[in-house]
Amino acid sequence: MSNESNWVTPDNVGLLTDLYELTMLQAFWEAGMHGEAVFTTFVRRLPRDRNYLLAAGLDDALAALEALRFTTDSLDYLATLPQFRPAFLEWLAEWRFEGDVYAVPEGTPVFANEPILEVVAPIAQAQLPETVIMNQLHYQTLVATKGARVVHAAKGRKVVDFGLRRIHGYDAGIKSARAFYIAGVDATSNVLAGRLYGIPVAGTMAHSFVQAYDHEIDAFRAFARLYPGTTLLVDTYDTLEGVRRAVEVARELAPDSVIGAIRLDSGDLADLARRARAILDDAGFPEIRIFASGGLDEYEVAALVDAGAPIDAFGVGTAMGVSADAPSLDIAYKLTEYGGRGRIKLSPGKAILPGRKQVFRLEDAEGRAVRDIIARWDEDLPGRPLLEKVMERGRRLDPGRSGLEAARARARLEISRLPDHIQSIGAASEPYPVEVSAELRAMSQAVARTARD
Amino acid sequence: MSNESNWVTPDNVGLLTDLYELTMLQAFWEAGMHGEAVFTTFVRRLPRDRNYLLAAGLDDALAALEALRFTTDSLDYLATLPQFRPAFLEWLAEWRFEGDVYAVPEGTPVFANEPILEVVAPIAQAQLPETVIMNQLHYQTLVATKGARVVHAAKGRKVVDFGLRRIHGYDAGIKSARAFYIAGVDATSNVLAGRLYGIPVAGTMAHSFVQAYDHEIDAFRAFARLYPGTTLLVDTYDTLEGVRRAVEVARELAPDSVIGAIRLDSGDLADLARRARAILDDAGFPEIRIFASGGLDEYEVAALVDAGAPIDAFGVGTAMGVSADAPSLDIAYKLTEYGGRGRIKLSPGKAILPGRKQVFRLEDAEGRAVRDIIARWDEDLPGRPLLEKVMERGRRLDPGRSGLEAARARARLEISRLPDHIQSIGAASEPYPVEVSAELRAMSQAVARTARD
Repeated sequence: MSNESNWVTPDNVGLLTDLYELTMLQAFWEAGMHGEAVFTTFVRRLPRDRNYLLAAGLDDALAALEALRFTTDSLDYLATLPQFRPAFLEWLAEWRFEGDVYAVPEGTPVFANEPILEVVAPIAQAQLPETVIMNQLHYQTLVATKGARVVHAAKGRKVVDFGLRRIHGYDAGIKSARAFYIAGVDATSNVLAGRLYGIPVAGTMAHSFVQAYDHEIDAFRAFARLYPGTTLLVDTYDTLEGVRRAVEVARELAPDSVIGAIRLDSGDLADLARRARAILDDAGFPEIRIFASGGLDEYEVAALVDAGAPIDAFGVGTAMGVSADAPSLDIAYKLTEYGGRGRIKLSPGKAILPGRKQVFRLEDAEGRAVRDIIARWDEDLPGRPLLEKVMERGRRLDPGRSGLEAARARARLEISRLPDHIQSIGAASEPYPVEVSAELRAMSQAVARTARD
Repeated sequence: MSNESNWVTPDNVGLLTDLYELTMLQAFWEAGMHGEAVFTTFVRRLPRDRNYLLAAGLDDALAALEALRFTTDSLDYLATLPQFRPAFLEWLAEWRFEGDVYAVPEGTPVFANEPILEVVAPIAQAQLPETVIMNQLHYQTLVATKGARVVHAAKGRKVVDFGLRRIHGYDAGIKSARAFYIAGVDATSNVLAGRLYGIPVAGTMAHSFVQAYDHEIDAFRAFARLYPGTTLLVDTYDTLEGVRRAVEVARELAPDSVIGAIRLDSGDLADLARRARAILDDAGFPEIRIFASGGLDEYEVAALVDAGAPIDAFGVGTAMGVSADAPSLDIAYKLTEYGGRGRIKLSPGKAILPGRKQVFRLEDAEGRAVRDIIARWDEDLPGRPLLEKVMERGRRLDPGRSGLEAARARARLEISRLPDHIQSIGAASEPYPVEVSAELRAMSQAVARTARD
C-alpha cells in the first residue's frame, strides 16, 4: 500500500479538478464553442463577525494557471473513464491557459460581491481552472482574514503561527504561513514556509523535551545553554514552579546566556502571566518576556490584552489555521460574460453581476476608505480602482506591486485605512458601504430580462 | 514572483515541521540522548456532537515517515538559521526514521484518550515526525468522521463529495476524498483522487454550462446527447421550468439517450424535490432520479431524509470537507516513555497516560461493541486489541489488513457494531464507555508521584 505518488505536483495538478470541468470542456470542444468568456470570483456574503476579507492567494492561483497541463499519465487515466473521446484527449494534451487575468492585489481588503479576480479567455480555457483558482484564493483569503483579526487583537504584541500540525493537510500548512505573513503575523514555526517564502521562523520547546529529562531544571539548563535567548516552556508539571526553575537557570548562566522568555501553554493565562511576571521581576529579570499559547484565537487574545495581562507575544495555532469560527467562505467563480453578452443566473440567493467589472474605492482627504462602488470595467468613476491586469495571454505581469513583502505592506496600510468599526473583530453595527453603479445595475436588469428562456 | 517550487514533495517534506522539532533534535544530539522513546497520538476530547471518531490517515503518516529526510537544499536552508551547527547538519543529512509504529487500522472507530498511533524509536527519530504525523492523522480522521456522519444521515442514498474547491488547499483536497471513501462516501468529483486512489469519480454540470448557451434547453440537449445517463442542473433560472425542459429533452432523445437525473442546487430542496418528482412522474419518467446539493451537511441531509423528500442522491461539499461544525480535533502526540521510564505531564486539562498502550474493545455475543479498556501494551485482557504493529525498523508491514478498500469495509462493519445512539449524528446522552485498566492507572499514579520535581 505504498503511496509515493500521493503528492500534488505540477505533473498532476491538471487532474486536481472537478470531473464536470472536464466533461463541460469536452462539450464545449464538441460544440465548437471557443468564444471569449469572463468568469468572476467573489464572495457572496461575509461570515458572521467578519467586517472585511483580506484578499490573498493570487500568486498561487496564477502559478496554477501557469502549471496546468495534462501529462501522459493524466491523459492515460482520463482515457480509462467512459466520458472521454480520444480526439478530445489529444486536444487536451495541448491545452494551455493563454488568457488574461485581472485581480485585486494580495493584501487588499475586499467586501461581499466585489470581484477579487476575473478571467478573460476562450471558454474552454477559462472554465477548467475554476477548481484550483477557488481552492487557492478561498483558503488564503480565509486565513489571511483570520490572521489579520488576531494581529488586530494583539495590539502590537508579537504573533507567531503555530498551526501546521492541525491545519488541513500539507499544502494549507505552507499556504497558511504565507497568508498569515501577508496579514501581519510576525513569524511561523513552519520551517518549510521559511525556506519557500523567506518568512521568519520561530519556535520554543515542547513538553516532550522537558519530560525526556528526569528533572525539569536539567532540561531548561541544556536548552538555554545551547540556545541563548531561547524560550522555556514552564507548564509541564507546575507552572509557577517552572518559572522559578527558569529563574534559577537564568541566575546560573548569567551573564553568559540570557533566557529570552518563558512560555505559558495551559491554565488561566492572565492570572499565570501576572504571577510569573512578579516572580521574574522580583528575581531581577524584568527583561525575560512572557509568551502565551494554548488554544488561542482573536477573541481570547483580545480578552488577555484588554485585561492587561503582562503577555509580550502570542503563539496562535489551530484556531487561526482552520479559521475555526468561520472555516469557509461562500466564494464563487461564475460565468458573467460569453460571446460578448453578459451572463447571469437567477438561483435564489445566488444572483450574480454580469460582465467584466471594476471596483472603485472612495477615500476621504485623509485616505480613509469611505465606500466602494462595483462598476462595469470600462466606467470612469471617482475613487481608486482595485482590480489590475495581472496576467496577459497566459503570462504573468509584474507591475512592481507583487511580492510577499509588498502584499504585507499593502495589507498593513489598507487595513489601517478602513473605518475603525470595520477593522474591529466584532460584527460592525453598520457594514462597510458597497454600491453597484447605475450602469452596472442597468446592464444587470437588461441581461435578466432576456435570461429566463 | 514565480513560485514554481511552492509544492510540498518528498524532496522538501523534511522541512515541513515546526522549528522546535529541529532545535530539540539538536539538543538531544548534543546531549547524547539516544534512548528509546514512546510517543502516543490520541485525541483529548471529542468535539460536540461527535460520539466517536473514525481513524484515518495512517497510510499517509507512514508514507511521511518513509519519505522524511533532508536534501542538500533543505540542509543549506537550515545552515542559514542561527540555531544549527555544521556537525549537527551533517548528522541530519543521514537522518532516517528506523523505528517501530503501532496503530489502529484505518476505518476503526476510536474514542477520547485512546491511542491511535504509537511510535517507538530513539528519541531523536521519534520526536521529529510529530508535526507531519499529526497533520495527516488529524485531518483525515476529522473528515472521515464527518463523512461517516453524512453517510449515516443519508440512510443508504448515494453521497458524492463535491468539496475540492473550498477544502483547505491541494493536499487536503486529495486526502479528504480518500478519507470520505473510507467513511462510505460513494464517489468524488475530484479527478486526481480518482487517479491516485481509484475512487469512483462523478460529476454533473455547472451553471456556467447552462449560461453559456442562449437557451437553457440547448445546453441540456448538447450535454445529454454527449453523455447519455447524465445529470442536468435545473436551477440556473427557474427550477421547475428547468425540470420541464429536462423532460422535453428526455422525450426528444428517447429511447436513444436517457437522462439519468436532474440536480437541484438552491431553494427549498424538499419542496422542489417533491414538485420535480411529480413533474417527472407525470411525464412518464419515474426512472429519472433527483440529485440534491447546495451547502448541505449531515443535519440538512437528515432533515431532508426524515421529511421524506424524494431525493435519491446528495452532493456534499464544503461543510463536509472543512468539517464545518468542528473544524479541528484536540489531537496530541505526546512523549509517554523515555529510557524505559513512563513519562507524563500534569498541565491542567492535558494529562496523559504513560508508556506503550493497547486498547481492548469488548463486544457482546452479537459482536456489538460494549466498552473499551485502555491498558498497558503487555496486559492480557478480554476483548479485541485494536492497535497492531504497522511498521518495523522503519519499514511498513502489511499484514493483509491495509489498503483503501479494506479500510472502507472495516469502517462499514465497525461503525455498524457501535451502539445505535453512538452511531447517531446527535450528541449521545451517554458517551461510549472507555475505561483505564487498573494496571495502567497504578502505573500512571506511580509516574505522577515522581514527576513533580
